[in-house]
Amino acid sequence: MFRQIAILGPGLLGASIMQAARQRGLAQRLTTWSRRAETRLRCEGKPWCDAVFADASDCVRGADLVVTCVPVDRIAEVLAAVAPALEPGTLVTDVGSTKGEICRHAQTAAGSKVNFIGAHPMAGSEKSGLEHASPSLFENRICFLTPMPATPAAAVDAVARFWNALGMQIVTTTPDMHDEIVAHISHLPHLLAATLSATLQRKPEDWRNYAGPGLRDTTRVSGGDPALWCSIVKDNREEILRALDSFQEELDLMRSALRNKNFVALQNQLTRGKGWRDLLVTRETEKNQP
Amino acid sequence: MFRQIAILGPGLLGASIMQAARQRGLAQRLTTWSRRAETRLRCEGKPWCDAVFADASDCVRGADLVVTCVPVDRIAEVLAAVAPALEPGTLVTDVGSTKGEICRHAQTAAGSKVNFIGAHPMAGSEKSGLEHASPSLFENRICFLTPMPATPAAAVDAVARFWNALGMQIVTTTPDMHDEIVAHISHLPHLLAATLSATLQRKPEDWRNYAGPGLRDTTRVSGGDPALWCSIVKDNREEILRALDSFQEELDLMRSALRNKNFVALQNQLTRGKGWRDLLVTRETEKNQP
Repeated sequence: MFRQIAILGPGLLGASIMQAARQRGLAQRLTTWSRRAETRLRCEGKPWCDAVFADASDCVRGADLVVTCVPVDRIAEVLAAVAPALEPGTLVTDVGSTKGEICRHAQTAAGSKVNFIGAHPMAGSEKSGLEHASPSLFENRICFLTPMPATPAAAVDAVARFWNALGMQIVTTTPDMHDEIVAHISHLPHLLAATLSATLQRKPEDWRNYAGPGLRDTTRVSGGDPALWCSIVKDNREEILRALDSFQEELDLMRSALRNKNFVALQNQLTRGKGWRDLLVTRETEKNQP
Repeated sequence: MFRQIAILGPGLLGASIMQAARQRGLAQRLTTWSRRAETRLRCEGKPWCDAVFADASDCVRGADLVVTCVPVDRIAEVLAAVAPALEPGTLVTDVGSTKGEICRHAQTAAGSKVNFIGAHPMAGSEKSGLEHASPSLFENRICFLTPMPATPAAAVDAVARFWNALGMQIVTTTPDMHDEIVAHISHLPHLLAATLSATLQRKPEDWRNYAGPGLRDTTRVSGGDPALWCSIVKDNREEILRALDSFQEELDLMRSALRNKNFVALQNQLTRGKGWRDLLVTRETEKNQP
């Protein structure tokens, strides 16, 4: 159990962490910081929030665990700002969807007397903001941890235990390998869903009314916040371009099979895809909906 | 209410129609035909099946409504085979995912003394077979009807009432317009999901274990039957190629925005996609899952 967990940025993920940590009794005290007065008001008096601050340094003072839940391009900046207020030995982690850039800068920004261990909980929603927070958001989800070689094992273990205590399954890897993996399994699917929605946006408006559940599922993530996704894509640009290249190769195969009426090749490709999808680990009761 | 509804092919859709028709009291008698002895055995004695036949002509004899639920490339052939056994004035409809080719041939195949009204209920599942059938499969879904200009209005109305009685919302259009629409809102999303799954199938196996709910939703439909989808794609090839061209244009925009670090253009495209997705009509309680 932590003495005080400070959550910087009580958005969907930050507030969900606070709710889950309170429910699971992981901290004596839960503090948070938001730049926005409106968000601070929303946190005040909540059972999962013991104190909310307009100043990030005040929020982290006395904390033995700090979780930065700000957009990826602001993590280093926020950590640099609070660094003087961090106690020696404080554990610092984050929820950023990319890890290479962050991990290269965050330890320096946070200072050498604390330990930064990058994390990426694979949980979230196309809906953002603390009004959609849920204490069960992390249950049975994957959490990547990307410690640097110099990080003490005890600090890594303590942060792993924290994420695990929220209900997550820990996968430890390097920041760069993490970025390659999520470029393919998270960022690529997001961009494809967005591209499909953008394609349909150019078509007659009434077509939208005929959408079945397949289209609804295929495009769901494209409802995500464009600014947030833009900052993720910016940070993981090179890996995403490589993932897009792999996808383009498969798409070219598909199109030439169709163009050449090579339905044997087409069926083989569909079968290969189905084979992969059928083995996708079911971490939750898979919806059996049509 | 119909005297007898004959369902040719009691798979996921056919058996679901029988269950729904029984539950909603749409027919005095429900008959079905399957080529496969195993499927016939599964239908025997079911409360939603009054008689099951090994011969399709026996199945349709006495029916005032016939629904062909066989793969799109077999509809005309099956109708031609049962044509001599159809009573004059019988209504014939289908569940094929494409309509142009089918509607050009089905009326001729079924004969001039009956009326064929093409239908495409936008319901289904990546799971096939009667074991996944459900009487609620059609509720609140779209059903396209694509009558030919020469079809009597009374026949079209009667078939529309049938699909509507299963809980569906009817959209009447031409066969060719139907094919253009579904190429974009159903076939394109399916092929993209399959292409994404095929892309990931070439990557390290363990990556699959890290999939979040976004990837799971984005790829869900790629679990569909490759042979079934191949026959759909074959039938609607030209419209699908055009839809793929539209998607490729958007994908090229996305890739060049990334390559050129034009994040303003990227965010605009994401915003356009989100705008389309946010307005997608919610026909069921939208899953609020992350």
